[in-house]
Amino acid sequence: MQFICVDDFEREAKRRMAKKALDYYQSGADDELTLRANREIFSDFRIMPRFLRDVSNIHLPSTIFGHKITCPLGVSPTAMHKLAHPEGELATAEAVNRFGSIMTLSTLSSTPIEEIAGRNPTLIKWFQLYLFVDRQESLKLINRAEAAGFDALVLTVDAAQFGTRRADLRNGFHVPASLMANFSQKNDQSIQSLDYIDASIQWSDVEWLCKVTSMRIIIKGILTPEDALLALEYGASGIVVSNHGGRQLDSAPASVSKTCEVLCSY
Amino acid sequence: MQFICVDDFEREAKRRMAKKALDYYQSGADDELTLRANREIFSDFRIMPRFLRDVSNIHLPSTIFGHKITCPLGVSPTAMHKLAHPEGELATAEAVNRFGSIMTLSTLSSTPIEEIAGRNPTLIKWFQLYLFVDRQESLKLINRAEAAGFDALVLTVDAAQFGTRRADLRNGFHVPASLMANFSQKNDQSIQSLDYIDASIQWSDVEWLCKVTSMRIIIKGILTPEDALLALEYGASGIVVSNHGGRQLDSAPASVSKTCEVLCSY
Amino acid sequence: MQFICVDDFEREAKRRMAKKALDYYQSGADDELTLRANREIFSDFRIMPRFLRDVSNIHLPSTIFGHKITCPLGVSPTAMHKLAHPEGELATAEAVNRFGSIMTLSTLSSTPIEEIAGRNPTLIKWFQLYLFVDRQESLKLINRAEAAGFDALVLTVDAAQFGTRRADLRNGFHVPASLMANFSQKNDQSIQSLDYIDASIQWSDVEWLCKVTSMRIIIKGILTPEDALLALEYGASGIVVSNHGGRQLDSAPASVSKTCEVLCSY
Amino acid sequence: MQFICVDDFEREAKRRMAKKALDYYQSGADDELTLRANREIFSDFRIMPRFLRDVSNIHLPSTIFGHKITCPLGVSPTAMHKLAHPEGELATAEAVNRFGSIMTLSTLSSTPIEEIAGRNPTLIKWFQLYLFVDRQESLKLINRAEAAGFDALVLTVDAAQFGTRRADLRNGFHVPASLMANFSQKNDQSIQSLDYIDASIQWSDVEWLCKVTSMRIIIKGILTPEDALLALEYGASGIVVSNHGGRQLDSAPASVSKTCEVLCSY
Repeated sequence: MQFICVDDFEREAKRRMAKKALDYYQSGADDELTLRANREIFSDFRIMPRFLRDVSNIHLPSTIFGHKITCPLGVSPTAMHKLAHPEGELATAEAVNRFGSIMTLSTLSSTPIEEIAGRNPTLIKWFQLYLFVDRQESLKLINRAEAAGFDALVLTVDAAQFGTRRADLRNGFHVPASLMANFSQKNDQSIQSLDYIDASIQWSDVEWLCKVTSMRIIIKGILTPEDALLALEYGASGIVVSNHGGRQLDSAPASVSKTCEVLCSY
Repeated sequence: MQFICVDDFEREAKRRMAKKALDYYQSGADDELTLRANREIFSDFRIMPRFLRDVSNIHLPSTIFGHKITCPLGVSPTAMHKLAHPEGELATAEAVNRFGSIMTLSTLSSTPIEEIAGRNPTLIKWFQLYLFVDRQESLKLINRAEAAGFDALVLTVDAAQFGTRRADLRNGFHVPASLMANFSQKNDQSIQSLDYIDASIQWSDVEWLCKVTSMRIIIKGILTPEDALLALEYGASGIVVSNHGGRQLDSAPASVSKTCEVLCSY
Repeated sequence: MQFICVDDFEREAKRRMAKKALDYYQSGADDELTLRANREIFSDFRIMPRFLRDVSNIHLPSTIFGHKITCPLGVSPTAMHKLAHPEGELATAEAVNRFGSIMTLSTLSSTPIEEIAGRNPTLIKWFQLYLFVDRQESLKLINRAEAAGFDALVLTVDAAQFGTRRADLRNGFHVPASLMANFSQKNDQSIQSLDYIDASIQWSDVEWLCKVTSMRIIIKGILTPEDALLALEYGASGIVVSNHGGRQLDSAPASVSKTCEVLCSY
Repeated sequence: MQFICVDDFEREAKRRMAKKALDYYQSGADDELTLRANREIFSDFRIMPRFLRDVSNIHLPSTIFGHKITCPLGVSPTAMHKLAHPEGELATAEAVNRFGSIMTLSTLSSTPIEEIAGRNPTLIKWFQLYLFVDRQESLKLINRAEAAGFDALVLTVDAAQFGTRRADLRNGFHVPASLMANFSQKNDQSIQSLDYIDASIQWSDVEWLCKVTSMRIIIKGILTPEDALLALEYGASGIVVSNHGGRQLDSAPASVSKTCEVLCSY
């Protein structure tokens, strides 16, 4: 097996991984319209190339919030890497560190905040946050991330209600407490209950976050220009345009949709 | 078999039901262009989600014509539920009653008007009406529905000519008199003849209905803004935008089409 | 086998007919883009139905050039019906006569002009004409059609060059002289050579036709508004909008294309 | 096997050629979106035919840069014809010569410039050029082409970076030095290294080419109106609108795209 394109990795993963874990990663919400749209929309774009310009020196490095990165690509937060491989987020972090870009660690990571940080002091680290009903519990995570040298909080805002992923339901898949490395509660019951994720989060919570931490705040899940402007207004340093990999609201537009196209579809 | 989405119910029905009955339910008219469009159009819609608004309290209940419903969804009229299951419309009515919404009983129901009403006194009941050539025969049904506590008449207007459903023709399917619970005539001949449904119905018949009953009149099958306005003008309390499940006029637009899209298709 | 829709006839034909004959009928030119477009375009049309108008009396009969027809549908010219069935054009003509509409006989019919006319005196008959290089030869056919009581000449104008129908080439299909009932030359060689069809035909030939016959002239194959207006100007009584069943110029628009759509495709 | 359309040749090639060679010819870059678009776009075009114009004399011959050609079609440069057949470019050149049109020989041809010219003195010959980092090496090729009677240089400008053709990578395909007939260096190492193709080429190189040769300069790979105008400005005699057969930048528009369509896709 040669790994020439991303599809090769997907094919190999399908061969190696347990069905439950694979389904957890590859499923989108409901009819998976948005999941499919995320990929298919790329065939709608046309790049109009210009030629006879000297491209012998191409400069990919960039800076983000004062940090140098080798290329404007980073790793988005995804849950429980140990579900895919026993080395989990440590392997991911090491790869990102060597590549020289940003690692965003999930709240639902299977490796603790402090272990990632301890092993990768020079890595640019962001921490993805779900805001819990119990704000003090969230504050503990925030403080730990800040203490561990994380640079930014990536607040996920599109999970007030979790999407229905049919394969997970058919497989009886539950987030295993043993893989929740950042929680003090180590029992399955408390973790399954999604009370952890607060459906009441609102813009004022962004202001609260700005007060309780000196890390930058990045809002993840924004899909409208209106919300992008509000993010700025409420103190966020940036946004991640995302539909959560098509796993939350089915019928949400593809992440790379052109705004005008989306508006036309009304 | 787990029932996670509507498709699961459809799959199970295909496994359990007799071919003739299944074909009766699942066929559309002619080439089934409209039948397919009814589903496929949903993939054309994009929901633009806004976030960071408190959604911890979501309020689905609503009121319709003074009745409280738990959710703005009701049951549309469909013929002969006993073709699918021996409990027929009684089971459907009980489910709708528990859910707390509207049950629309078909003229072609396999359970009599009075039995549905007697067993479900608190259910919000609407009665679907085909207007017969013999208006006195229709009047009997109207009076029975009103006496039984039905709240509204849902007049189907898109059946002046029945659609050609090829599978029914191939199967030699005929509406069995034994399943026509609301008719005094209990012989197959009179029921097969579609003279029962009057091709001459017109807007003045809506006025007539308003006079002969105190139930509200709802016009089912409207697909144009022009007809929607006429419905209002002739005394209807509402309309049901519908193409009869793609079973009547093939090439009619999908029920949830956006008007502008339809106009553009000319 | 029940015959419920046109597809049923096509399926049965595929079962019964010889491959060469079937391929002759079912092939379009080149990549068959236009052949497919002819059918597929129907799924792009939406009929916006209006309701509650008395449709108990539907009037299909019409008149065309002073003749009453039972319905605005007629039979287009197609070659060599005996390739499909030994009764050939006689059976077609009898069916059209009973139905009460127009029969257009092909120049390439496998039943002579006079036999069709003799057996169907009351049938409305049009004669399809290819204009030959030898105009006197064409004139003989015109005179025979007129003498036999044909009402109109349908001049095919889209065959200056015959389309490449790949299946015919693969099958080694040739128009058999034995099925060319209207030609004096009964040898295969003269008939294969397409010199018979004159690539030099032009609008002045329409004027010539108007002079040499009292039959009405109808131009078949028109696909642009510009040519439709020219047809009128040069004395034609009507046009047949057609792309020759997708058998001539591949990439020609579907016959029922909306002009605006076609213009937009530039 | 009959050869009736281009697809027939492709089918036969798939039957006869070695997988590595076939894959080299038939692969596009990355996801092959542009490769597929190149073919599929043809089904989007509609030809609006006009009729009744004398087409008995159709004139295909044309002239290009003072040379008569029998038809406005020529042969584009493609690498290593001997990969497909031992007669290689000599067979192609002979066919083009008989047909009476233009042969464009690739820099990467498997037959030397001088052999093509020597065997086909009357053939209209263009030479495709990649501009090497070592301009003197390029100049040698230019001088040889000019000396051999080539009429134009076709400068490929879309290869500053070679496209990723996955099948070639999977097959471990490398351009074999033994098939590079125009290079003095006959070792595989120097030829694999793509240093040969200079990523720094720019418009001033077109001016340089105009000075060092009296052959006309044609720029191949132009996809925007802006670059077409620049080509004119910098002294080119013409352009070849091309996306390199979908083998370079995936997501580039189909070569025959209408500009307005491409603009709309933004």
